[in-house]
Amino acid sequence: MQIPRRVSIVLFGDFELLDAFGPVQLFSRVPEEFSITLVGPTAGPVRSRQGTHVTADTSYADAETPDIALVPGGIGTRGLVADPSFLSWLGTWARPASLVTSVCTGSALLAAAGLLEGYRATSNKRAFDWASSHGDNVTWVREARWVVDRDRWTSSGVTAGMDMTHALIADQLGADAAAEASASIEYEPHTDPDADPFARVSRDA
Amino acid sequence: MQIPRRVSIVLFGDFELLDAFGPVQLFSRVPEEFSITLVGPTAGPVRSRQGTHVTADTSYADAETPDIALVPGGIGTRGLVADPSFLSWLGTWARPASLVTSVCTGSALLAAAGLLEGYRATSNKRAFDWASSHGDNVTWVREARWVVDRDRWTSSGVTAGMDMTHALIADQLGADAAAEASASIEYEPHTDPDADPFARVSRDA
Repeated sequence: MQIPRRVSIVLFGDFELLDAFGPVQLFSRVPEEFSITLVGPTAGPVRSRQGTHVTADTSYADAETPDIALVPGGIGTRGLVADPSFLSWLGTWARPASLVTSVCTGSALLAAAGLLEGYRATSNKRAFDWASSHGDNVTWVREARWVVDRDRWTSSGVTAGMDMTHALIADQLGADAAAEASASIEYEPHTDPDADPFARVSRDA
Repeated sequence: MQIPRRVSIVLFGDFELLDAFGPVQLFSRVPEEFSITLVGPTAGPVRSRQGTHVTADTSYADAETPDIALVPGGIGTRGLVADPSFLSWLGTWARPASLVTSVCTGSALLAAAGLLEGYRATSNKRAFDWASSHGDNVTWVREARWVVDRDRWTSSGVTAGMDMTHALIADQLGADAAAEASASIEYEPHTDPDADPFARVSRDA
């Protein structure tokens, strides 16, 4: 990877706000080590599910493959899993990245683009049955805050993406750097990827 | 308050991204109860400290006083505490709101605008000495995740704003509604405003 590591976040209409900006907030606490690019359908404003418009720095068509690709979730994933041109772009663009990551139902997009074949992965617990219906040869893990399988990192719902990002910073820079990044935003991260209270709630419901 | 309660978030150059969007994410999980407006120096893009441009829905000049005003922190506060025209606008605009709230060093802006006179308040722990130098008659509370004093709610750094928002939703809608909002984003909130591990770290440093 280059230093700073190039992190690109894939935005789309009706993405979930915190899926993207929880990780962005943590990565940006170590700006000399990670640079962030927001990639959208076109350069310019992209509307999140929450109604907030965020400016994409560059378009899918113009975006270079980064060191770390991150795909958020959100209700906008429901249409994109059936959008061949988006999935074709995502597969081609993300596959050469050193790490391909997702938050929440972003893993459904990775799976639908063929990026999780032969990998273990997780997703949002309330949308788990839907998300895990994608991909042909994905080992879906229901009880996990996040799952690391070689160069694929996938997290559970929304705020789980912050815990995955904390772990990713620790993987790249060491535990002390990750602890400092989280402490600087007064965040107490979950550090056990297998501890997932929401999987249990989901099963009981 | 009107239903949905009108929540306005005050954006400014170099605001801290998650100070604003942690609360937005939680409020937007109960869209029939809270509507969000982003207010900026002008309508249009505002650059966060993290480099992300977010679109303000309306300008300071045109913004109506909401039911709930929320002021995030960030390094941009350092200039604004010495900007008489901003402080004059903020004081006049926010004072009639039912609740005036802040995250992180946003409380320095409330204090500098005269909105915390006679109130208890807290702020980011790493910027506490600076933040608490503002206002003439503010009782600053160093060890608190967040502080509620009548119609003023102020939180500690960044992610503490999510815990304050969880508590505010509970205050307005009941504990079950707040628990559902947090669970839907797989977030385990801190529910004790007095439990503040970062105050201790800050004192030891």
